[in-house]
Amino acid sequence: MERVRISIVGASGYVGGELLRLLLRHPYVEIAQVTSESHAGEPVHRVHPHLRKATGLTFCRMADLKPCDVLFIALPHGQVAPRIEAFAALAPVLVDLSADFRLRRPEDYARWYGHPHPHPEWLSRFVYGLPERYRAELRGARAISGVGCNATAAILALWPLVQADLLDPERPVIVDIQAASSEAGREPNPGSHHPERHGAIRPYAPVQHRHTAEVRQALGREGVVLSLTAVDAVRGVLAIAHAWPRDRIAEPELWRIYRAAYGEEPFIRLVKDRQGVHRLPDPKAVVGSNFADVGFAVEEETGRIVALCALDNLMKGAAGSAVQSLNIAMGWPETTGLDLIPVYPA
Amino acid sequence: MERVRISIVGASGYVGGELLRLLLRHPYVEIAQVTSESHAGEPVHRVHPHLRKATGLTFCRMADLKPCDVLFIALPHGQVAPRIEAFAALAPVLVDLSADFRLRRPEDYARWYGHPHPHPEWLSRFVYGLPERYRAELRGARAISGVGCNATAAILALWPLVQADLLDPERPVIVDIQAASSEAGREPNPGSHHPERHGAIRPYAPVQHRHTAEVRQALGREGVVLSLTAVDAVRGVLAIAHAWPRDRIAEPELWRIYRAAYGEEPFIRLVKDRQGVHRLPDPKAVVGSNFADVGFAVEEETGRIVALCALDNLMKGAAGSAVQSLNIAMGWPETTGLDLIPVYPA
Amino acid sequence: MERVRISIVGASGYVGGELLRLLLRHPYVEIAQVTSESHAGEPVHRVHPHLRKATGLTFCRMADLKPCDVLFIALPHGQVAPRIEAFAALAPVLVDLSADFRLRRPEDYARWYGHPHPHPEWLSRFVYGLPERYRAELRGARAISGVGCNATAAILALWPLVQADLLDPERPVIVDIQAASSEAGREPNPGSHHPERHGAIRPYAPVQHRHTAEVRQALGREGVVLSLTAVDAVRGVLAIAHAWPRDRIAEPELWRIYRAAYGEEPFIRLVKDRQGVHRLPDPKAVVGSNFADVGFAVEEETGRIVALCALDNLMKGAAGSAVQSLNIAMGWPETTGLDLIPVYPA
Amino acid sequence: MERVRISIVGASGYVGGELLRLLLRHPYVEIAQVTSESHAGEPVHRVHPHLRKATGLTFCRMADLKPCDVLFIALPHGQVAPRIEAFAALAPVLVDLSADFRLRRPEDYARWYGHPHPHPEWLSRFVYGLPERYRAELRGARAISGVGCNATAAILALWPLVQADLLDPERPVIVDIQAASSEAGREPNPGSHHPERHGAIRPYAPVQHRHTAEVRQALGREGVVLSLTAVDAVRGVLAIAHAWPRDRIAEPELWRIYRAAYGEEPFIRLVKDRQGVHRLPDPKAVVGSNFADVGFAVEEETGRIVALCALDNLMKGAAGSAVQSLNIAMGWPETTGLDLIPVYPA
Repeated sequence: MERVRISIVGASGYVGGELLRLLLRHPYVEIAQVTSESHAGEPVHRVHPHLRKATGLTFCRMADLKPCDVLFIALPHGQVAPRIEAFAALAPVLVDLSADFRLRRPEDYARWYGHPHPHPEWLSRFVYGLPERYRAELRGARAISGVGCNATAAILALWPLVQADLLDPERPVIVDIQAASSEAGREPNPGSHHPERHGAIRPYAPVQHRHTAEVRQALGREGVVLSLTAVDAVRGVLAIAHAWPRDRIAEPELWRIYRAAYGEEPFIRLVKDRQGVHRLPDPKAVVGSNFADVGFAVEEETGRIVALCALDNLMKGAAGSAVQSLNIAMGWPETTGLDLIPVYPA
Repeated sequence: MERVRISIVGASGYVGGELLRLLLRHPYVEIAQVTSESHAGEPVHRVHPHLRKATGLTFCRMADLKPCDVLFIALPHGQVAPRIEAFAALAPVLVDLSADFRLRRPEDYARWYGHPHPHPEWLSRFVYGLPERYRAELRGARAISGVGCNATAAILALWPLVQADLLDPERPVIVDIQAASSEAGREPNPGSHHPERHGAIRPYAPVQHRHTAEVRQALGREGVVLSLTAVDAVRGVLAIAHAWPRDRIAEPELWRIYRAAYGEEPFIRLVKDRQGVHRLPDPKAVVGSNFADVGFAVEEETGRIVALCALDNLMKGAAGSAVQSLNIAMGWPETTGLDLIPVYPA
Repeated sequence: MERVRISIVGASGYVGGELLRLLLRHPYVEIAQVTSESHAGEPVHRVHPHLRKATGLTFCRMADLKPCDVLFIALPHGQVAPRIEAFAALAPVLVDLSADFRLRRPEDYARWYGHPHPHPEWLSRFVYGLPERYRAELRGARAISGVGCNATAAILALWPLVQADLLDPERPVIVDIQAASSEAGREPNPGSHHPERHGAIRPYAPVQHRHTAEVRQALGREGVVLSLTAVDAVRGVLAIAHAWPRDRIAEPELWRIYRAAYGEEPFIRLVKDRQGVHRLPDPKAVVGSNFADVGFAVEEETGRIVALCALDNLMKGAAGSAVQSLNIAMGWPETTGLDLIPVYPA
Repeated sequence: MERVRISIVGASGYVGGELLRLLLRHPYVEIAQVTSESHAGEPVHRVHPHLRKATGLTFCRMADLKPCDVLFIALPHGQVAPRIEAFAALAPVLVDLSADFRLRRPEDYARWYGHPHPHPEWLSRFVYGLPERYRAELRGARAISGVGCNATAAILALWPLVQADLLDPERPVIVDIQAASSEAGREPNPGSHHPERHGAIRPYAPVQHRHTAEVRQALGREGVVLSLTAVDAVRGVLAIAHAWPRDRIAEPELWRIYRAAYGEEPFIRLVKDRQGVHRLPDPKAVVGSNFADVGFAVEEETGRIVALCALDNLMKGAAGSAVQSLNIAMGWPETTGLDLIPVYPA
């Protein structure tokens, strides 16, 4: 079989590095070009030290891109939408990992991103690249939007409860999210400076986090709010969702519901043991892999359900889900190139 | 003025080490004896490397304790209550940092600790050592219980809202707590092993955390639930409380309420800036000090109030509040020995 | 081709977990049995959270081991030698990752381990499993000893200089080694307790480190001393070797020497750029992979050569080199199952 | 006694924040002005979150400085020398924490900093602010240069050996230094970005580190070379010096030498126990304090002496030594304002 030719726009960021880690070992593809405006002409390993000896590629400029089969776009938010027609002219299949095409309704985009979408007609052409939620739509898709890492953790924790229509519609679900530092990308900023971030437990967006929109869209439910805190880890997101059921529910019934929802999923692991250090999801156990660990607990006294999801923000929360979605879109076995076992402990 | 003679039982743990750090510099006290069953006969600095050259004390056994003016007890939970009569015979003033005398009602103790209290008659003699809540009762107190570090963060975040009777009584407050590793004490366990804990974002008690009882007691409100997660820091607790008001409330009004509650407090800092890395409470900014940083945010869309509190679990969450309470009980200036500026960055 | 059946003794430690991560994806092998005395009867993922869904294996006891094709032994030091005959009866090929069979001369073992070797006749049957040094001997080997992680870093940094006979025989090479916490294994100890190890820069063995013996043996040179410091990372070793040449040598000549030694090595990357964050070896850039990054610098003023090597102590420093050695011994392509790209940043 | 009025130039950096932490609690001084060009007009706590409630000061511009009694200068290297006359016109006593006036000989400055010193006549007016080495010269000094943090660790480790003339003059001392991230100051850079620095063990300057010049000057010995590595901690430096004696020396003799050199020093602690986690110096045990922990080991086989020193780079390595030097210069008790016990664990 001839390999599909893939180019990556904006390949010098962390998501770009992670896409390369996956696609350089993917048996059905080959990397044609990788772009970086600030590193054009430099070997990829100058920026991505892990890729030394794994690739001899050199960054080129976006202007030098040639047509290819699949174009991955890993540019910062807001830089894709204005160029979408140009990107579409380069490849029949687009996978955009920015936030520009995650929302379906132009009014949602305008509300959460503070300005009208420059190409609203494209919003409905994209499929949200979360196979556990949109697998059917991803088959044969030609435009796939990447997922928000925090949103993915929240959605995967809650989807079985929503799908089973278990939750009290009157009471909002509150999702506390704890996130690692690679989430904010490669660009240094005062908050990412090591002396400031090391050991921090820093409320970042206790209200009005933008990923709220993706979560509500995927769950089909307005009553969800997020709260984001930054902690001292490089990879990982943990979502802790506090939800109130219509009626008291016991843990065995929740087991049934989560198993029904995720039992066949190749990358979801149900983690809920009675004891042990690893009895509930912890992003540390999925580092470097495409697994999302999902678990739950019920507070007998109050009925509160706590639904948890831990994932690697650069994998299941970005590059991993994107490749998984591409596999589905192209009709390849869904786990191709993604059957990596987490690196533990790391 | 003659110095008050203080002995510390169980001084080889982290809280014991922190008490020594404070009391060795406290102008009105002197340390008489410090006990450790496993390190009896050893110099204190063998166990507490920071105290080298700060003290020449040597650990003795509990059985060797002599009468003193004030007895601090820093034993593990459950080891104080059975011996309370013996301790009371040693000193007219007791400060117990375990959880054994934090709850007022025997039935609460039985419910949360799983067995009847061995000396329930002592429960009402103790004052909960949180000056911001029980200052009046602490004056002249002869039995002071230490505070739970997580509970303190939750109480300090929420007390102004409860005091002002702002919250919807029908909707439980959910408090997400992120905690550092020194909270669990000095004894190694599989979860505290560095390769396992480093970089972890680990749900520890998403439901039914014991500190819930203290929080409810201090707030006088049943509708509060906690969720505890362990993160990669050594010192620090962050409480993020999600609360729903009776009626929509605007931030200026919350400012007024928090200022009214805490404006005169020597150790509470209101942290709520419009921008900047340090715009909200982060335990990193209080390391080594007795400060509790308190802040809040309101979600305009939903009305949700997020109240936050960051503190150093060994200081304001343990030794610091205990010394502050003793200062009040003895009639000394409340900040004596506690006016330490945080160490930042650390 | 029929898969080779491999069993792992002592599979519940970190090296055991890493062997499983590799061997579960190795195309020529299958895992027959894994033993753990303390976890017998439990599923592997209870201990190794990363292996959940990657294997359904359950630990058995050593006493339940059946004959297999290759036996990996990942027991603590000192526990293998007394049982070597029993292990040898189980499988025609042994790979022992303990330190018990790393030294060739019984007198060296006695000197560095403080007691005579219980089966000295076996010492010469083992090949030291470092392909970059002993590839020829590993072909067809039937007893392979694992490498010391610190020793490997020191050897790989220095071997080209020694091989080229560049170093002044009169002046000892001093190797400063900085090591991560997983090196000490899974068993918690007071020094591995998170509050104690987090942020530590702790001299562990400034003199007389046991790995000195392996380094001297592999380099064929007595004049090497080690100094080991523990730092705050989970995976990784950095060796910084300070060496004095017979005659001044310029960097281009060193380039030639290192390229000659390692140019064909599949897992060694020469890292020496003029600028950039990643201009010299850093274990962070090899996490989860079998790469060893090697670099050097020359101090013009003094002639001092600094040779550096960074590797992942659980991979190139343990499980990775062991699998690579097995591949060679069995006649398989050397990189089989090991072509993992590092996880970066992590 | 009237308080001495101190102003701080460049007070928004980490050293500035640490000076404020010390001087705001110093009984003989008051802070007059603090400057920051980029934060002029902002309250100090906006930049230094730990100082909230500890001071109501606001940053002003350098141009607004008024005369004062003592001027502390905490500007980046290279920014002080050109302005030295202007600073000298503002205050009769100068304490400069940059590297601009640390070297006595203009030719040394030119060699290590790559350009001639703009005011070489000032070099000999400054006293190097390390009391353990230059106490006599500091008495009554009117110009004090701050110390290099790495240099201080190296000097304090080695000074007793040099003073006793124990070392082989033919064999260079090699000092491996492991340093925390606050050393590089507040300005973010690609290497200080949290995802890049977290968990790193990164060779920074294996040869030709600039602090070499200070070390040689203080030890009066050319034969010393440094090697600097960056590790994952915020505060702390560990120097591991490998030295060769003229004649074999036993540990008891070294004990005598170190005790003779440092027995009366208020801020040096000799740390050398037979066992225990804290048996040798570790910067973790001095965080937030002015202590330098010094220890040593002898390798019986080779005679190698390892001398170690751990300190807090912002304290003994910068602000603490500067305040200690000022205390001496002004004739105040040397430990005034500096008797802080380390924060441990942190």
